[in-house]
Amino acid sequence: MNILHTSIVDRLLRAVDRVVAPPTAFAHCDLPCGVYDPSQARVEAQSVKAIQERYQGADKMKSATETVDDYRARCLSIKEERANLVKEHLWVLWTDYFKPEHKEKYPQLHDLFWSATKEAGLAKKSQDPAQGQKLLDSIDEIANIFWETKKG
Amino acid sequence: MNILHTSIVDRLLRAVDRVVAPPTAFAHCDLPCGVYDPSQARVEAQSVKAIQERYQGADKMKSATETVDDYRARCLSIKEERANLVKEHLWVLWTDYFKPEHKEKYPQLHDLFWSATKEAGLAKKSQDPAQGQKLLDSIDEIANIFWETKKG
Amino acid sequence: MNILHTSIVDRLLRAVDRVVAPPTAFAHCDLPCGVYDPSQARVEAQSVKAIQERYQGADKMKSATETVDDYRARCLSIKEERANLVKEHLWVLWTDYFKPEHKEKYPQLHDLFWSATKEAGLAKKSQDPAQGQKLLDSIDEIANIFWETKKG
Amino acid sequence: MNILHTSIVDRLLRAVDRVVAPPTAFAHCDLPCGVYDPSQARVEAQSVKAIQERYQGADKMKSATETVDDYRARCLSIKEERANLVKEHLWVLWTDYFKPEHKEKYPQLHDLFWSATKEAGLAKKSQDPAQGQKLLDSIDEIANIFWETKKG
Amino acid sequence: MNILHTSIVDRLLRAVDRVVAPPTAFAHCDLPCGVYDPSQARVEAQSVKAIQERYQGADKMKSATETVDDYRARCLSIKEERANLVKEHLWVLWTDYFKPEHKEKYPQLHDLFWSATKEAGLAKKSQDPAQGQKLLDSIDEIANIFWETKKG
Amino acid sequence: MNILHTSIVDRLLRAVDRVVAPPTAFAHCDLPCGVYDPSQARVEAQSVKAIQERYQGADKMKSATETVDDYRARCLSIKEERANLVKEHLWVLWTDYFKPEHKEKYPQLHDLFWSATKEAGLAKKSQDPAQGQKLLDSIDEIANIFWETKKG
Repeated sequence: MNILHTSIVDRLLRAVDRVVAPPTAFAHCDLPCGVYDPSQARVEAQSVKAIQERYQGADKMKSATETVDDYRARCLSIKEERANLVKEHLWVLWTDYFKPEHKEKYPQLHDLFWSATKEAGLAKKSQDPAQGQKLLDSIDEIANIFWETKKG
Repeated sequence: MNILHTSIVDRLLRAVDRVVAPPTAFAHCDLPCGVYDPSQARVEAQSVKAIQERYQGADKMKSATETVDDYRARCLSIKEERANLVKEHLWVLWTDYFKPEHKEKYPQLHDLFWSATKEAGLAKKSQDPAQGQKLLDSIDEIANIFWETKKG
Repeated sequence: MNILHTSIVDRLLRAVDRVVAPPTAFAHCDLPCGVYDPSQARVEAQSVKAIQERYQGADKMKSATETVDDYRARCLSIKEERANLVKEHLWVLWTDYFKPEHKEKYPQLHDLFWSATKEAGLAKKSQDPAQGQKLLDSIDEIANIFWETKKG
Repeated sequence: MNILHTSIVDRLLRAVDRVVAPPTAFAHCDLPCGVYDPSQARVEAQSVKAIQERYQGADKMKSATETVDDYRARCLSIKEERANLVKEHLWVLWTDYFKPEHKEKYPQLHDLFWSATKEAGLAKKSQDPAQGQKLLDSIDEIANIFWETKKG
Repeated sequence: MNILHTSIVDRLLRAVDRVVAPPTAFAHCDLPCGVYDPSQARVEAQSVKAIQERYQGADKMKSATETVDDYRARCLSIKEERANLVKEHLWVLWTDYFKPEHKEKYPQLHDLFWSATKEAGLAKKSQDPAQGQKLLDSIDEIANIFWETKKG
Repeated sequence: MNILHTSIVDRLLRAVDRVVAPPTAFAHCDLPCGVYDPSQARVEAQSVKAIQERYQGADKMKSATETVDDYRARCLSIKEERANLVKEHLWVLWTDYFKPEHKEKYPQLHDLFWSATKEAGLAKKSQDPAQGQKLLDSIDEIANIFWETKKG
């Protein structure tokens, strides 16, 4: 079974775990409440990519009540916000969830977050869905590590 | 197989679907970008419940650097914010994602959202994790409908 | 006296009531503080409509220091925010102020709020002041019910 | 007729004006959209005062699910936010609506806004409804000038 | 030594003071915490001016992944936010830091803040860096008074 | 001359540079506008420490219109916000300003930001000004690197 399949199976089993056993709560405020979930960043990044796709197909996606230019201006300002939310959720995960012992086990941790948040910054300047996909991929890489630390 | 099991199997199969097939993007801003996910409200509600639990066990959960009273004051103000986010995510889902055809098929839709957002309001005044669980349950009920409309 | 006139007289009498008797405070946070007022949504909706009008007359409304395109881009992003505030104020009113007994007396309540907040969403995509007027009308319909419940 | 009565009649007539004639839109963003209304600050100030009253009667106002201390902690943090909104709405009115010609006619303008926003700051530190009433009075004084400039 | 030089020497000495002696903390929330610093408004105003410059040289400043029009739309919406922050920081300084005794010594205080915040409003409508410089100058004028009151 | 003195002289010279030469603008939004300044994080951290000091001396610092408990509750919720702003400003600096070449020259960069933002998180749970001082020190360490990269 190749790596891709292994990863799919891993994620499948993880999904099964999350469904069968009631999810234990983790943390995303500094109480801390212990609830963290990389899906928060992912949802916003999906939105970023979807906006980039809509920007490309603006003439088909826009409402009858707005011009292509208006629609694209809205794409840009909404994407700006969504990309900010991606950064925000990632930063919280990096500072608040991950601990020195994780850093030791995953020495790439800092660089992963640095490049993922930089990619989110680039998303503001790019209307190319391939860029949005890169952002999603970098979040998935972080999510994989996150879920591995949860299994431990 | 009783109802509970059926529901677990349903959710399991849905989880499988989401893992095997790459998720299609839907919508959560008014572009609209088409990305919606009830998990956004759920993560915040998990946080609400976790805070209620920590409030109850404040003497064990607090840092050495704060008093029980300080910790509880922080529980209350953070829970206030999280409960607001639950309401926010639910309102967006209700107004932006759901369409009249969904309303026809699920006539309970308005009341579900009304009572779920009211429950989120109650969460600000309650330190009882059982209340937080009720909030989670009401979100799950909405999520079930949401994922059914996605299958259609 | 036709319906329109009756409604004007009703509103006039209500205005008189509010002026002569010092207003009793009601509620708009989840304390709850008991202060609610549909005028909050209305002010933002007036702004939405005013922006749509200015968008149409951009060449006359813009400053000498900006181009028509720049002015219109600003119209769009400011309208986006104002429409969000309309939704926000309406959602708070719906969930926090209205109670089941109101729902029973005004069975159209849920649909009114649903379509008013959807109208606020449409306002982001429309530069037509007639659309903004529809939004204002839907808020006024809600406000009429609100003030009736206050009289009871 | 004493001053108080004159003022009530003035406000009554103004209310009548606003009801009979459809309100013309003015401005509250820097587009500018031209929609301004001192009622925005007033609603938040009413909330401030209502919270101060509830703080005093906490044992009767609180939910069964919270302690008096919890309720009061929530009073304080919500009042903090509401007082901020009062300041915000007043500052916008001062900088964005009022023009040098108004300043000339109402030389007390700057001091009125300065003391009203300072009063809003004091509201964070005071649990006395009489203080909240002073805040409301200072807003009403500004509102009187505002509506006079509209008549001109 | 002319006025300009005197002012440079003043600022130099002040800078020396701030470096050699550990800064005493002052105030910028309504606790109040006593920490105020006009540099907060200044940083945002520098950003406003930098954006105006980039708008002018958009073809050279933009990323390869965005059009000139897209870049300019982003300039406008980001400048809008930054100008808001300038206003916000100035308003806080005006209401929260300055006291009646300062007002007596610097009778121009209210007008300085009024025109500086109005200038920040104009910045939203102007793409001319000279306008941004005027905004910076008006903040520096306020900062000079601020630091003088600190010396007292 | 020991290290401490060297550092003071360095900072003094840097202060002189900033005063004599007009500051060139750098960047703090993703336009990017090029304006960055670690003083933004520092001002908020000064506020955090000042609040911790006031918490300790609550009986002397509080207004006559509030109880010691009320004052402390306000200390906690305001400190929570200020500590969030510290994190925010630091994260922006880390992701947006620093580039791979800086990382190469200052290999400790990631860890510095990680521990500084974690320290800001701890500030929410600690009422000890010594903790706030640690936060300030960690920001100064970052600021030193920042200003060195500016000299290059």
